[in-house]
Amino acid sequence: DFWALCSDPVSTCSQFCTMYCIIQLQTIDNVWEPSQARKLGPYFHDGRRRIDYVLTYTVQKPVSMSPTSSGSFVRGLRQSLSRSLRRSTSSAQDDPENASELGCQEDVKRVRREEFEDNLMEMGLELEKDEGTKIPGVGFLKIHAPWDILCREAEFMKLKMPTKKVYEVKSASNFMEKISQFFNKMTKPLQPNVEDSKMETIKHLSYPFSREKQHLFDLSDKDSFFNSKNRSLIVHGVLKRTKCVRGKHNVGLISLLGNGVYTSAYPLHDVSNTSLLLYDEWARYSIFYKYQPIGLIRKYFGEKVGLYFAWLGVYTQMLIPASIVGVIVFLYGCATLDDNIPSMEICDPRNNITMCPLCDRVCNYWKLVAACGTARASHLFDNSATVFFSIFMALWATMFMEHWKRRQMRLNYIWDLTTFEEEEVSGASPSRAFQHLQILYCHQEISLNPICPLFQTVKLTCTDRMPAYMTTLVMMCFMICATFVVVLGVVLYRIAIMTALQLTQTPATNVRATVKTTAAIINLIIIIILDEVYGALARWLTVLEVPKTDKSFEERLIIKSFILKFLNSFTPIVYLAFFRGRLVGRPGSYIYVLSSFRMEECAHAGCLMELCIQLCITMLGKQLIQNNLFEIGIPKLKKMLRRRKTGMDTQEEELEKKLRRHEKDHFLGPFIGLSPEYMEMIMQFGMVTLFVASFPLAPLFALLNNVIEIRLDAKKFVKELRRPLAARAKNIGIWYTLLRGISKVAVIVNAFVISFTSDFIPRLVYQYMYSPDGTLHGFVDHQLSFFNVSHFRPGTEPLEPMLGNQKVEVCRYKDYRDSPWSDTPYDFSREFWCILAARLAFVIVFQNVVMLMSDFVDWLIPDIPKEINVQMQKERTLFVEMFMKEEQGKRILWNNQGESPCQPRSTHPLSDYLCTRLDT
Amino acid sequence: DFWALCSDPVSTCSQFCTMYCIIQLQTIDNVWEPSQARKLGPYFHDGRRRIDYVLTYTVQKPVSMSPTSSGSFVRGLRQSLSRSLRRSTSSAQDDPENASELGCQEDVKRVRREEFEDNLMEMGLELEKDEGTKIPGVGFLKIHAPWDILCREAEFMKLKMPTKKVYEVKSASNFMEKISQFFNKMTKPLQPNVEDSKMETIKHLSYPFSREKQHLFDLSDKDSFFNSKNRSLIVHGVLKRTKCVRGKHNVGLISLLGNGVYTSAYPLHDVSNTSLLLYDEWARYSIFYKYQPIGLIRKYFGEKVGLYFAWLGVYTQMLIPASIVGVIVFLYGCATLDDNIPSMEICDPRNNITMCPLCDRVCNYWKLVAACGTARASHLFDNSATVFFSIFMALWATMFMEHWKRRQMRLNYIWDLTTFEEEEVSGASPSRAFQHLQILYCHQEISLNPICPLFQTVKLTCTDRMPAYMTTLVMMCFMICATFVVVLGVVLYRIAIMTALQLTQTPATNVRATVKTTAAIINLIIIIILDEVYGALARWLTVLEVPKTDKSFEERLIIKSFILKFLNSFTPIVYLAFFRGRLVGRPGSYIYVLSSFRMEECAHAGCLMELCIQLCITMLGKQLIQNNLFEIGIPKLKKMLRRRKTGMDTQEEELEKKLRRHEKDHFLGPFIGLSPEYMEMIMQFGMVTLFVASFPLAPLFALLNNVIEIRLDAKKFVKELRRPLAARAKNIGIWYTLLRGISKVAVIVNAFVISFTSDFIPRLVYQYMYSPDGTLHGFVDHQLSFFNVSHFRPGTEPLEPMLGNQKVEVCRYKDYRDSPWSDTPYDFSREFWCILAARLAFVIVFQNVVMLMSDFVDWLIPDIPKEINVQMQKERTLFVEMFMKEEQGKRILWNNQGESPCQPRSTHPLSDYLCTRLDT
Repeated sequence: DFWALCSDPVSTCSQFCTMYCIIQLQTIDNVWEPSQARKLGPYFHDGRRRIDYVLTYTVQKPVSMSPTSSGSFVRGLRQSLSRSLRRSTSSAQDDPENASELGCQEDVKRVRREEFEDNLMEMGLELEKDEGTKIPGVGFLKIHAPWDILCREAEFMKLKMPTKKVYEVKSASNFMEKISQFFNKMTKPLQPNVEDSKMETIKHLSYPFSREKQHLFDLSDKDSFFNSKNRSLIVHGVLKRTKCVRGKHNVGLISLLGNGVYTSAYPLHDVSNTSLLLYDEWARYSIFYKYQPIGLIRKYFGEKVGLYFAWLGVYTQMLIPASIVGVIVFLYGCATLDDNIPSMEICDPRNNITMCPLCDRVCNYWKLVAACGTARASHLFDNSATVFFSIFMALWATMFMEHWKRRQMRLNYIWDLTTFEEEEVSGASPSRAFQHLQILYCHQEISLNPICPLFQTVKLTCTDRMPAYMTTLVMMCFMICATFVVVLGVVLYRIAIMTALQLTQTPATNVRATVKTTAAIINLIIIIILDEVYGALARWLTVLEVPKTDKSFEERLIIKSFILKFLNSFTPIVYLAFFRGRLVGRPGSYIYVLSSFRMEECAHAGCLMELCIQLCITMLGKQLIQNNLFEIGIPKLKKMLRRRKTGMDTQEEELEKKLRRHEKDHFLGPFIGLSPEYMEMIMQFGMVTLFVASFPLAPLFALLNNVIEIRLDAKKFVKELRRPLAARAKNIGIWYTLLRGISKVAVIVNAFVISFTSDFIPRLVYQYMYSPDGTLHGFVDHQLSFFNVSHFRPGTEPLEPMLGNQKVEVCRYKDYRDSPWSDTPYDFSREFWCILAARLAFVIVFQNVVMLMSDFVDWLIPDIPKEINVQMQKERTLFVEMFMKEEQGKRILWNNQGESPCQPRSTHPLSDYLCTRLDT
Repeated sequence: DFWALCSDPVSTCSQFCTMYCIIQLQTIDNVWEPSQARKLGPYFHDGRRRIDYVLTYTVQKPVSMSPTSSGSFVRGLRQSLSRSLRRSTSSAQDDPENASELGCQEDVKRVRREEFEDNLMEMGLELEKDEGTKIPGVGFLKIHAPWDILCREAEFMKLKMPTKKVYEVKSASNFMEKISQFFNKMTKPLQPNVEDSKMETIKHLSYPFSREKQHLFDLSDKDSFFNSKNRSLIVHGVLKRTKCVRGKHNVGLISLLGNGVYTSAYPLHDVSNTSLLLYDEWARYSIFYKYQPIGLIRKYFGEKVGLYFAWLGVYTQMLIPASIVGVIVFLYGCATLDDNIPSMEICDPRNNITMCPLCDRVCNYWKLVAACGTARASHLFDNSATVFFSIFMALWATMFMEHWKRRQMRLNYIWDLTTFEEEEVSGASPSRAFQHLQILYCHQEISLNPICPLFQTVKLTCTDRMPAYMTTLVMMCFMICATFVVVLGVVLYRIAIMTALQLTQTPATNVRATVKTTAAIINLIIIIILDEVYGALARWLTVLEVPKTDKSFEERLIIKSFILKFLNSFTPIVYLAFFRGRLVGRPGSYIYVLSSFRMEECAHAGCLMELCIQLCITMLGKQLIQNNLFEIGIPKLKKMLRRRKTGMDTQEEELEKKLRRHEKDHFLGPFIGLSPEYMEMIMQFGMVTLFVASFPLAPLFALLNNVIEIRLDAKKFVKELRRPLAARAKNIGIWYTLLRGISKVAVIVNAFVISFTSDFIPRLVYQYMYSPDGTLHGFVDHQLSFFNVSHFRPGTEPLEPMLGNQKVEVCRYKDYRDSPWSDTPYDFSREFWCILAARLAFVIVFQNVVMLMSDFVDWLIPDIPKEINVQMQKERTLFVEMFMKEEQGKRILWNNQGESPCQPRSTHPLSDYLCTRLDT
């Protein structure tokens, strides 16, 4: 009767009732008092029922408590209340003045909550409320799923559960068995100290849970049959399905969350052994050299997160051979530094070559020997090993994909996902669009007109969507242009500073070094800032588009931000690799931008060196800043802010220790999906593969970063974020497509880098076509064309016509052009066209050969590992046996009972009833 | 007691028993005498039980009949017999003399059959035997699956059956609805006159059949619930699973077939309405313009065959736009024939250009104007529209793939295969390897040593497989070399004949025409012969390799024969396109093969014309000969031979009409799989896409061929072949991969054809770089280099140094080389390198742009059509509803019964029993 009073429509929110409720609650607390661990653990107040899911909401003032009891009288009363309120809401629309106060919104939200909670109870879930007891202003709705509901939903979700049947997992052959045993022994110290990873020789046969086949499962311990991950998954399934039928449209959890009816929804962290083990064996920097306990991660965080970390692990592992080869290639460059004929020739002061000035008027003629240092340095990255390394990395990328595909398949098998159908794939939650739209519309509605028509039916046509798509298109184009403009800006900065510095007669090498470094750092800063801006913009644009499903929302967002971030990171690098030093014209007819700046030239030995510096700075800088600042610093800052907001000060930290689990989790950061993590890694993969021809140390840097990244992410997941919903997933989805795309583009980019940016092809052509003795002697001379200084355009000739104490009459420049005294002065020479043809031919050959090799490797390595195939086969055979055994058993039983086994409408007492129901 | 007598071990095969059996049988025949239709239809002698499957075997002499009765006495006797025989078999191994007669083998086979049949009856199938009644020497084992077995197996195979629940299939939006209605109305006359295709607006919800959920299905007509396709599928499943346990190894149906224990196994044709309708609405030439009744085909032949015809249909349909564009491109060539400046210049006799002789000694100098005809003709295939057409066809290929993917998905949805797991994919029938090997080993064993150890256990190690793999490798290399040698042979033939004919002073044009045509025809004949040889060789090699599974057997066979046939068909064409006329050297230093034959040159206006002729002849010839001769002629011949072999003459055709269904089907050709059909089409697809740049009419020819091909195949399937097993399949498997591969290669090949075989790039370069007035005037002159006739190598100069009445001092040849009076005579000129660079650049740009466009189209078009997505979503919602309704019903019922719904081991009377069984 007390409860009835509490929810009585008349006395709602009355002071009396509230006080009484609180007293009552405290009494209950005192009466039950379970063990301390249980009390702070994820349990209801009775200390027995587990909290499987928590919804939070804001409580303005302490209002009446909803008890967990589902007495029909109370429910009836509450329903009548909500009905009357609903009526008052609709009447409120007619009379805006009447309801324009802010309280009304809160009331509507409460009513909505009550309806939703009723529906949840209708579905069989058990609820408990906790309003503002320890944390003021926050209400918690704790949800527990009883055994019956777990069974029903597991059957409905076709959750595969381990059966009693156990079988031995064996390698395909004896030989393989021994190898894998040896391998296991060798990697013993690298394995995480988790029981899970040892138990791989025995596997429980899994079967979709079904109440009709309960005898298959080991149900002796009902509490642990469904672990906390599965329980939260099941409850989430029910929550997703439950709708408030309000107005013409169904309103689900996402919409309720979007409307602020609930503020957050999360499953609880599990302070069991698993969690502690995860911290000890995974989330510590000191065990960076160990494998990750993927099985455990999956058990705790679900398949989607498990796949991310498995992928990251595979990627990091695959980076090891790449870094080793990269370092070897680099060392080869160092070792052959002194045998390199072109740089020897450049450094030889006897080759008295006078070069044309690098800028108009103020620059002087210079001796080629001045470029000695750059030439020697650039040999480190531009030698014949580089070509080999590019091919190696292209194949490496393919191998990585293949390796991952196999690993994924193996995990799918171990995790019993082989038959799992990704519902999302075919758009199982199409409500997102409408719900999102509703949120948008509602917010507009509310801001325009503070009444309470929170829920409206919206139908989108093509014309509705057009503006959003147009906005997206325009904004994307605009942002891409912005990226280009930024790059151009940096180029102009470089030219301007260079000219300015040269005017002040600073020594040339200092000038170059300063300008290069500052430009690269400016670039880096711009990239990092734009990255954040573009991320936010992409999200905003995607919300505007109102995609149909969750999955399509995610995909569109990813594609947009990928395009923007990719362009942002790689445009400066592409400019350096392919355009810098190519659009300069020739002495006497230089190309000018903005009519006064001469386009910048490269140092003598190619632009490869500068490309390398840029790559190095971008990669290191990005990783350091993004890792340290964004991933460690900002979350800490946010946490601090959140605490301050809820009025918790540092001295209250002691109190926090006394908080219950769901209250503790409330203070953790919300889980915002894996997209940012993946995106970071994909960008890194791009750095590692795209320009690897010019920077063989990239894989090493990536490796070092990732070793830290894994443990950093692990810490974040275990300690700093709310537990993510244990989403099931068979693969990493669109990320795989993007990886594939990048590795395809990488082949072409590397082909162009080798043939156009490096001097590899000219050297080859010289050696085999023009060299008098088949060596590279004379290559430097061959590369340089002649220019008659009398052909300078008036006003552009250097102020100082002397070099040393000689008057310069002919200077040299790096290009293949006819000499001034030929019939066609300064035209591209036959050598130019010949080398161009060779370069292009190299691109075609390289691209097609590498692609063919990749495809061949792809085809050669089966996607499904052999032993998994064998085991799946074995499982299937075991099922046939089980089925047949059962059939035999049935037949015997039926024969004994004298009943036919297959008479329609006779086997089950329900069928008649159900048939009549279904017929109607 | 009579039956017992018949199978009595002592009187086996006694004359008495046999006679008695026959008499008995005839009596039965006379006694029952059902309606004529029923009697000749696919039914047991009782006219009620349907024959679902037939196994045939050879009967040497009329032996005892096995009755269908399963009396335990008879079975006991028979088992004791087989046991004693088994004993005698094993003793026979000790004493070879004792059993070396041929009869023993027959006996062993019979025993094996009996054991197999016992096992089948054990599985619940019903059998009837028919030995040599009408067709002497052939025994029929007719198999019928009773209702219980059908139910059990359908549940086991998770066969999706239509439930009673019906829902409306609607397009996504109103607008789409109207469009599709309009489209349907428009294509009304093209639709086959089948009810199936009209009923598309309503669909039965399908659910995997389960005896526990029988109330879901409409079981009112048990005879037609499982149609003949499903029945045969089910029986085949049982047959596959049933094993004879003999020796250490299980022996399945495939092995029994391979050993000749049974000679063939096939389901029966169904002389129902479906079959007649198929004939009327599908297998007639007069309805070539109509769509195929795919639903009906699938209903009768199963999904795998259905997919083939659907694919063929989509391909043919997609060829229509391609042919139209191809014809337009061709017509454009015709229309611009007279505006083409280069051919006008060639045909202009005022351009008095003397060309160098085409062969040593005997050939004369000639005037360029003589090449006028060829130049004009080659413009038909070498104009700017060709480039457009190549790009179009590359995109067309992508569109075709996408279209097919969508169509496949749609069919998967309509045929309820979306959740079907292809068991074969993961190697569900690994017995093939062993069984095949057994067959091989057994055959060897038998031929070496005619005892009867028919069945042995074989285990293959790496070393066992090595010889087979080595053989494959060596044979493949050998055959590939053979292909090249053949092409070289044809080239030599052409050169030799050409020289010979020129010696006899025949007019040049006649010579060329004769040689070209005969060479092309010889090529064609060789291709067709080698095709057959290679097909047989590939099969032999694959058998040698002993692949593990059926699927891998098929795949390996397909890959081998694809490689061989592809090379066989395309090597001559590749030679023509890329090598002919390129390896000729220059006047004064020609290249000679076999030290005396000068390599052949092309006619003036490029080799494109010859390539075109070759393509045309190969394509037309292959299609005509293979279609008419091989697909129509040879099956007829085979049928005739088979009839003659079984002693049936034409006058007995009357008698044939009285044959029962299973006897009639015995005379039809066996179904040997879809691979040959697919292979033919894939080769055609190659012809259509690979060299489409040089032959825009290819799609038209292909279209004409396919229109006939569809009906031809249809006729074959309906009338001339035994009914194939209704295999389930979700996709066309490896063929899709091959199609993808071809369309990728096509992009590159077309890029090379345009840039290297045609004169497109040189024309462009001339126009924009060298032409004085920006037109093609002077292009012909620009293409021709000068040769000073005094530089001819002694002995190779023409016998006649005059042309007309002028002494020739300088002749011209088609190449870009420096003139004799330059510093570097006869070196490749700057124009050569410039044009080469342009050609290579074009290849890179074309390849990457077209690939990018293809990928973009691929990405743009969703693989799953939108409306299918919507409908799948709808189905899922319906299931949730159904499930929830059922749950509610259960709860009410249980509440009434006061029973908890989810107590383990209490819901089913069986569970306790089963649990104890499973625990052990």
